[in-house]
Amino acid sequence: MELLKQRIIRDGIAIGKDTIKVDGFLNHQIDVALLEEIGKEFAERFKGCEINKILTVESSGIAVAVTSAKYFGYPPVVFAKKTAPNTMVEGCYEEEARSFTKGTVSVIRVSEKYIHPGDKVLILDDFLAHGEASLAMTKLIRKAGAEVAGIGIVIEKGFQIGSSKLRSKGFKVESLAIIEKIEDGKIIFADDENADADRDSE
Amino acid sequence: MELLKQRIIRDGIAIGKDTIKVDGFLNHQIDVALLEEIGKEFAERFKGCEINKILTVESSGIAVAVTSAKYFGYPPVVFAKKTAPNTMVEGCYEEEARSFTKGTVSVIRVSEKYIHPGDKVLILDDFLAHGEASLAMTKLIRKAGAEVAGIGIVIEKGFQIGSSKLRSKGFKVESLAIIEKIEDGKIIFADDENADADRDSE
Repeated sequence: MELLKQRIIRDGIAIGKDTIKVDGFLNHQIDVALLEEIGKEFAERFKGCEINKILTVESSGIAVAVTSAKYFGYPPVVFAKKTAPNTMVEGCYEEEARSFTKGTVSVIRVSEKYIHPGDKVLILDDFLAHGEASLAMTKLIRKAGAEVAGIGIVIEKGFQIGSSKLRSKGFKVESLAIIEKIEDGKIIFADDENADADRDSE
Repeated sequence: MELLKQRIIRDGIAIGKDTIKVDGFLNHQIDVALLEEIGKEFAERFKGCEINKILTVESSGIAVAVTSAKYFGYPPVVFAKKTAPNTMVEGCYEEEARSFTKGTVSVIRVSEKYIHPGDKVLILDDFLAHGEASLAMTKLIRKAGAEVAGIGIVIEKGFQIGSSKLRSKGFKVESLAIIEKIEDGKIIFADDENADADRDSE
């Protein structure tokens, strides 16, 4: 998605070889107009999948999921929780998800009330790196007897294993920007001819 | 806001005398179409306030803020973070916020890059009870040299002190549904004539 790649190049900050900060438009400050374009693109890529529910995980997935919902005809958006609040007393599905960025393992939970057998659930998230969060969400969906309709990702770190891990399990994964590598502070996209041309000319 | 009150009556679950669960449409499963109506209502109530930024706090404020943004002309939405991720290395404004629901004190943070002197910032959140989260956000905004344009709340617990605490400091607070009390599992709104009539007839 060209608009997104341009924005990553303009405002993304590469740190070392494997970290990209996009908190200027995606996961701290949010550009809602850009997210609407992202939502339209997801709807295009998952057309015909008969999605009737969107699942994400707090916190930074929420903006992506909520903004995308209208382009899917306003299905309910459910976000998995990382903490068990006092008011979440009923039964819920639980899965562990490791965060390699933060070096933590968290339990993510969804109330049994909000995913049902027969649901066709689209997973949306802001980042895909090692794929642990997405994988945990696929397990939650299957525990509920529902179907994983697909996994939509805003930014995929193509140099980490998340995408191949998920695809090897048969899931349809659509990433709107795939970063092939970070080199000398420069972000190189996997399928970006211009980026390759830039590299050749340096 | 009548549509919201009806939804709270239909899907809200009263627990004891002071807890209302609305995770069927607001803070676990999200009804985006309802949130769009909420966003329109906020835009109406804060018309003329020249808002150029929206601030909320993760997680459940994000959906409200993001869905409201388009009715304010797409200002940037910033969400204060409750954890300090590895990738948030620059300077940030910090404030403590106590959660009476969870019995915890958390530090909320906003990067200095995303609130500036001269900004007119609207605070949006899903709940107002003791007002600690909103109050912490007003302090973050003022630390940045910016102006608090107002505070928009989806559901206010009118029987707790948050609203009067914030109003006594001169802030414009707009709550779309104000719960006066919870009585025998029934939710009574502060300015709802029908609810009063119902009570009279019981």
